[in-house]
Amino acid sequence: MTSVDTILAYAAARRDDSRARWFEWLRIPSVSAQPPHAGDCRRAAAWLAEQLRGIGFTAELKDTAGHPVVLGHHSGPEGATRHLLFYGHYDVQPAEPMELWTSPPFEPVMVEGPNGPRVVARGAVDDKGQVMMWLEALRFWHDTQGGPPCRITVMVEGEEEVGSKNLPDFLEAHADALRADVVVISDSNMWNIDTPSIVTSVRGLLYTQLDITAANKDLHSGLFGGSALNPINLITRILGDLKDDTGEILIPGFYDDVPELSAEQRAQWDALKFDEGAFLGSVGLSVPAGEMTRGPLERLWARPTVDVNGIWGGYTGEGAKTVIPSDAHAKVSFRLVAGQSATKVLAGFRDFIVARLPEDAQVKIQVFSIGEGLKIPSDSPFIRAAQVALTAEFGKPAVLQGGGGSLPVVSQIKEILDLDCLLVGFGLDDDQVHSPNEKFDVVCFERGIDSHVRLLAALATA
Amino acid sequence: MTSVDTILAYAAARRDDSRARWFEWLRIPSVSAQPPHAGDCRRAAAWLAEQLRGIGFTAELKDTAGHPVVLGHHSGPEGATRHLLFYGHYDVQPAEPMELWTSPPFEPVMVEGPNGPRVVARGAVDDKGQVMMWLEALRFWHDTQGGPPCRITVMVEGEEEVGSKNLPDFLEAHADALRADVVVISDSNMWNIDTPSIVTSVRGLLYTQLDITAANKDLHSGLFGGSALNPINLITRILGDLKDDTGEILIPGFYDDVPELSAEQRAQWDALKFDEGAFLGSVGLSVPAGEMTRGPLERLWARPTVDVNGIWGGYTGEGAKTVIPSDAHAKVSFRLVAGQSATKVLAGFRDFIVARLPEDAQVKIQVFSIGEGLKIPSDSPFIRAAQVALTAEFGKPAVLQGGGGSLPVVSQIKEILDLDCLLVGFGLDDDQVHSPNEKFDVVCFERGIDSHVRLLAALATA
Repeated sequence: MTSVDTILAYAAARRDDSRARWFEWLRIPSVSAQPPHAGDCRRAAAWLAEQLRGIGFTAELKDTAGHPVVLGHHSGPEGATRHLLFYGHYDVQPAEPMELWTSPPFEPVMVEGPNGPRVVARGAVDDKGQVMMWLEALRFWHDTQGGPPCRITVMVEGEEEVGSKNLPDFLEAHADALRADVVVISDSNMWNIDTPSIVTSVRGLLYTQLDITAANKDLHSGLFGGSALNPINLITRILGDLKDDTGEILIPGFYDDVPELSAEQRAQWDALKFDEGAFLGSVGLSVPAGEMTRGPLERLWARPTVDVNGIWGGYTGEGAKTVIPSDAHAKVSFRLVAGQSATKVLAGFRDFIVARLPEDAQVKIQVFSIGEGLKIPSDSPFIRAAQVALTAEFGKPAVLQGGGGSLPVVSQIKEILDLDCLLVGFGLDDDQVHSPNEKFDVVCFERGIDSHVRLLAALATA
Repeated sequence: MTSVDTILAYAAARRDDSRARWFEWLRIPSVSAQPPHAGDCRRAAAWLAEQLRGIGFTAELKDTAGHPVVLGHHSGPEGATRHLLFYGHYDVQPAEPMELWTSPPFEPVMVEGPNGPRVVARGAVDDKGQVMMWLEALRFWHDTQGGPPCRITVMVEGEEEVGSKNLPDFLEAHADALRADVVVISDSNMWNIDTPSIVTSVRGLLYTQLDITAANKDLHSGLFGGSALNPINLITRILGDLKDDTGEILIPGFYDDVPELSAEQRAQWDALKFDEGAFLGSVGLSVPAGEMTRGPLERLWARPTVDVNGIWGGYTGEGAKTVIPSDAHAKVSFRLVAGQSATKVLAGFRDFIVARLPEDAQVKIQVFSIGEGLKIPSDSPFIRAAQVALTAEFGKPAVLQGGGGSLPVVSQIKEILDLDCLLVGFGLDDDQVHSPNEKFDVVCFERGIDSHVRLLAALATA
């Protein structure tokens, strides 16, 4: 047997142990957005560092202005020069709304699904489950081969779900330790349950909160209606203006730096025969809501969007209250594509708002996340090596696809460390990431472990 | 001394007692919109019935499908035929947002203000404070004269703040007991602290809640942004379309039945020299936000409006969550003027929404209140008699004004009992009705008691 076959056999005999460790980590409610969970975030980080030390890594928690980063290192075999940097995040999205979970979000359970057993918990896949896959692969290399086949640095942050805002400082401060050959990230999905995927472009994220204020107190709409400015009416006018009837975004200059798809790229994506009807049908929808003039994968992977992620103001309790409130609020985010400047989009959005703001209204714009879209060269030796490993595992190569979501870290790593990322993840589109009842199919988790065992071998020699 | 002078002297010697009773009632948190306060509503009703019985009335709680109505009666002097119906409400608006109160909303306190002492509490003026004024006047007539100068029926409901939806059934069921000559209501404001006011028109209220749903679960905006319908974006588009840049409401047919002001009415109101700058300045605003082509009092009293009173959906916690939610909600209300049909406006609003609803979105429209605007003849003998009483108290007659707010009961009384109302209230525009720190100036409360002592004498012989 080759060493890879030995490791895979060893891993296959230890599925229960892998799952037990995964569950242990999921039980720590490391919700980065909610200050009361700060201690849990640190606990989740400490747990991971301990695991790394158990398989021959040096590992410690590095403090940041926010939640700590777990930084681990293994020098690999004597004289190894190939250096892989594994990135992941131990923080998870808030679990709210709690009442929609069929089991408590931080008590992982295994239930049967169409693809066999699945694990339901917040973070089951995003990103604890995906980090666990490569952690387990490293463990099995350690147990059977004495360690990984090359130098490995591990960097797992705790603020991905809140925009990785302290990561740039961290990357600057630890640039020497982090200067690897390529960065491996598992935080994306497979094309389908039989077909792996490598993401070669990701959208950026600009996430803002608008706080609009008008009168200095809540008013009675009977006394003041017809005279006083209503900030909710105003915020709906501003946000309602964001798109036209065809789904095009109306902020002046918004599309200036958005590149058109190449004919080759369009042909590749057309060949995937993406079934948008089924994609939307799985969540109870039927008609695409984005730009009407664009194709489905183009809209998901290569076009910018704007979504209002939250809105609130005035009376939201039961029954009627005839109030003209003093303030209204919204969380508004943009997915950006490679080429767009996030700061330019933010400036355009600010101008768009200010142009619609009457004299008596004030707006505060908070920025929670600002990351740009990115394209990754799809002809690198690392992607070629990964294709070999994934083909060995799945019997076919990975689809080279765009990513609709945002990994600010990919942009930050490119900018600060000048490194490309290999984005190979094992989630599925129906994993309910960020929603109640987030799940990860066990078959995906286990093939993810095996894929990472193979990827380590392939990338070490690429 | 005339009997009125005797009563006024007696009342003046008992200010502390009046205030103590007022405070006792304010301490009962009778918030009709919030089911946990149902017991408090009944307690507030029972308190009032007990007070009425203490001054020679028969009084009982009449159950409705919602909160009970207090119904009291006094047959007046032997052979009295003149019959006054006093209406009021013992329910109050929710006190939220609690954190903006400078003292607990249901623990009334007396603090100094520009007009001398004022009482701060939820319901201080609306409408417990105003009901207390005529209750105290009736008490002092009872204590000094043995009873009121004519037949009196008292009807105080517990659902005014949630649209008086069970009152029509009550009026139908008790029509015989309620068939008086005129209905006296104190639930409005004075023109200013020195000038009383009688309201001769009120706007109606149509209060709705929109519940818009799209996907069957919350979605990740990275995975679904550009493809999935976002119900918050949608609700902002619908509500943002409600008015044009001049403040005109764009629902087709909305203004069809809105009468233009008569030249005489316009001249009367112009003569009041309403200072809209000061009115808005008192709440931190400077520029009127209603229809730009209309005058200030016309906009407040004689033009319909639409206000979004509340909005919510998606993630509203701290920080960022990149969700496309499954649903979005808003409370939307219209102030209507005499001539407009509330059901026709509701139908027009429904059509307006449905015309903007894509195939994948569903809307539910709940109606919490539906009452029409009303004009009251300003030349009735009761208004003339009230002017005599108010002139005696204030040294000048009351301003005959429009009312911006809504008293659904005024329409219901007109429709079911065919009675006109005499709307004479003693609040001030800065009373912060429906807002945190609602207050009632003690001087207004006390002159209100004295005015009601005089009104009873005047109306009994009108």
